[in-house]
Amino acid sequence: MNEDQLTVLMIKYLKENKKSAFEKVLDELQPYDIAQLYRNLPEKHHLKFLLFLTPKEIADLIQELESDLQIEIIHRLGVEKSSKIMDLMENDNLADLLSELSVENIQEYLSVMKAEDSTYIQNLMSYSADTAGGLMTNQFMSIKDDYTVQDAVDKLKSFAEMNHTIYYLYVINDDKQLVGVVSYRDLVLADTNERISNIMFNRVISVPVDLDQEEVANLIERYDFIALPVVDENHKLLGIVTVDDVIDVVIQEANEDIEKLSASGKDIDFYTKATTAAFRRLPWLILLLFIGLISGSIISGFEETLEQVVALVFFMPMIAGMTGNTGTQSLAVVVRGLITHKLDKKTILNLIIREFGVGIIVGIICGLLIAIIALVWMGSIIALVVGISLILTLIIGTLAGTIIPLLLYKLGVDPAVASGPLITTLNDIFSLIVYFSFATAFLAYL
Amino acid sequence: MNEDQLTVLMIKYLKENKKSAFEKVLDELQPYDIAQLYRNLPEKHHLKFLLFLTPKEIADLIQELESDLQIEIIHRLGVEKSSKIMDLMENDNLADLLSELSVENIQEYLSVMKAEDSTYIQNLMSYSADTAGGLMTNQFMSIKDDYTVQDAVDKLKSFAEMNHTIYYLYVINDDKQLVGVVSYRDLVLADTNERISNIMFNRVISVPVDLDQEEVANLIERYDFIALPVVDENHKLLGIVTVDDVIDVVIQEANEDIEKLSASGKDIDFYTKATTAAFRRLPWLILLLFIGLISGSIISGFEETLEQVVALVFFMPMIAGMTGNTGTQSLAVVVRGLITHKLDKKTILNLIIREFGVGIIVGIICGLLIAIIALVWMGSIIALVVGISLILTLIIGTLAGTIIPLLLYKLGVDPAVASGPLITTLNDIFSLIVYFSFATAFLAYL
Repeated sequence: MNEDQLTVLMIKYLKENKKSAFEKVLDELQPYDIAQLYRNLPEKHHLKFLLFLTPKEIADLIQELESDLQIEIIHRLGVEKSSKIMDLMENDNLADLLSELSVENIQEYLSVMKAEDSTYIQNLMSYSADTAGGLMTNQFMSIKDDYTVQDAVDKLKSFAEMNHTIYYLYVINDDKQLVGVVSYRDLVLADTNERISNIMFNRVISVPVDLDQEEVANLIERYDFIALPVVDENHKLLGIVTVDDVIDVVIQEANEDIEKLSASGKDIDFYTKATTAAFRRLPWLILLLFIGLISGSIISGFEETLEQVVALVFFMPMIAGMTGNTGTQSLAVVVRGLITHKLDKKTILNLIIREFGVGIIVGIICGLLIAIIALVWMGSIIALVVGISLILTLIIGTLAGTIIPLLLYKLGVDPAVASGPLITTLNDIFSLIVYFSFATAFLAYL
Repeated sequence: MNEDQLTVLMIKYLKENKKSAFEKVLDELQPYDIAQLYRNLPEKHHLKFLLFLTPKEIADLIQELESDLQIEIIHRLGVEKSSKIMDLMENDNLADLLSELSVENIQEYLSVMKAEDSTYIQNLMSYSADTAGGLMTNQFMSIKDDYTVQDAVDKLKSFAEMNHTIYYLYVINDDKQLVGVVSYRDLVLADTNERISNIMFNRVISVPVDLDQEEVANLIERYDFIALPVVDENHKLLGIVTVDDVIDVVIQEANEDIEKLSASGKDIDFYTKATTAAFRRLPWLILLLFIGLISGSIISGFEETLEQVVALVFFMPMIAGMTGNTGTQSLAVVVRGLITHKLDKKTILNLIIREFGVGIIVGIICGLLIAIIALVWMGSIIALVVGISLILTLIIGTLAGTIIPLLLYKLGVDPAVASGPLITTLNDIFSLIVYFSFATAFLAYL
């Protein structure tokens, strides 16, 4: 059964009020699929659909949806029912949801929650969304270091309903400081009378609550963890970041790099409105328009040369374009490389020398090629001007595409904002200056 | 202690032959850190370093290293010792390592392995590296559906050394078909006499062995799994793909998108040699050079117009550049969107209409802006030609950046090969035709 067939079937059950048939189908679906179904349903069926779900199922559904649909559900269900559902949500997702609501609404929901949860969520909301604190959840199980394995299993059993996603148990001391970690597997394999402190792994890697999410993702990726504990400055355990959130971070960071490299503006997807998308892209475009005009004023400085040899214009797009292309290629290597490499002086120097080498090789091959073509098309002097210009501009383009993002990085600016279009536009300017200067110098022979 | 200090300390221990001090430090490190240390060591210390490690530690180390360093270690240790280490490696990593060796070497290593492992690895090597089969490992634990919880725990205990990374137990029937899954947590919470078939989750999501790695990554991301079982056409369990491999896939796919979008060539990182990097980028550059020459021959068709109004050239880089920029912006949205969206007719149509809208808004705003500037700089007729041309070319640029990658996708070609530089170069051509056609039409008034 494909998605469309499933949607049609569920609408039928909703219309005919067949709750048990509905539940039977729903039971086979994962939260992601239920969310897809909810998106596909016409809006008039939304309330009925929600009434057919258990609070747990609604909590799972909400965590898969976009914030506008989340808020719609919250408002449909009202404060009392919503707060029950919020109790069942993972706290990191809940904090994200609440941060979308108005201040009065937030207060209203927090006031009906358990005091403990309410405090935790207010804390979570105070951390920046792109730090370990913004990613973490309190859906983890902690045990005391003086427990036995049997004590731990008993605690687990009594909280069995709550902690459904977690694979490690974190061990804390009397001061609530993180001192070790035990996997469920360790519990299965250990003797029931064994002390937790004897079977736990005590060199736990943890992260401070204000660590950047990209660093958190790097650690999890590097060490192949499925969860990472988050601690405060006193090493008190605050929460955990799980691997599924990290995958989302990795995808988000890659998308941001591509957005910046293409200057395509933040958060534009297939469903963004045209006006929103246009106004997110316009700032970049207007900036690039003005930089593009600089090229124009440079050319106007060579007006005399141009009037004498209009044929020079024929090669202008190719030279400017090629310089932009080599710049973009170097830029991409630098931006992606920065994700996994630390930048010491030696690495930077090697990279610049390497790209200089690339520029020379690429420049000579493309320069010779175009000189031969220009020779056949236009004669020897133009061939000489175009060939030498291309060699020089390709070397400059490659170096600009390497050095500008590295400089930005060293200045603490994200190098991806040096974006393909920006490098391309700058390289336009460099290449036109080189090309027309050569042409003017050789003007007597042209 | 930072990385450099650690390296210096370990070199000291190696030189002074202090094995126990060495081991004490090493015990505190994760495989990733040991690999970093190995990379930082001068080559002359490599052999001594390896001799100080246990086979398990070498196996962990190898799995973190690049293939050239892996092969160096294998050759240093010789067949006999290497094969012991290979026994301790995860089979997916081992298959990747072996595929880097010569055919004779592969045969040599396979012949000294356990027959069971050797067959499994030969199978693994027959799957394409970018499919579920290429990613999977056999380091999982399967149990029979007629086991009791106690049977499962006993089996676990007897294989305790082997399965250190796994969080689920997979349940198979007499025909080795996958019928369910049990977490370690379920085992902890269940009564020891309970039947596995009663506590297992039997709607396991599994993937066929030839599924593309991008789809596998999507499933794991979508459902927040930490491992996904891989089955053959008879639903026999072959292996599992774990979430840490999936993070690597996500990063790799994002890098590939960026490589293609910037036409920067495959697999160029900070350490690629200049000649290698140059020759990986050259095919694209030479193609773009020839396409760029088309622009030149188009301009040469308008030579008469140009000779009469040389000032037209001043706005050429800006118009061509801006058209390229809008095209790149649209392209980036399409390429990243394709990762998470299915493309039905409705989505495609909506996207094209949306981008058409963006093109109109962006075109009118930038067109008006440039017309005002041109009016002040050059007078009313040039302002009119430049303004109208920019409106039209920005609409064309946006649509080209949207439709070309969508067409490629529908034709089964990866749309990211439509690359920023290619879209930019094509948009150069479109924009010059529009601009010079308008200029020629208005020539009488210029």
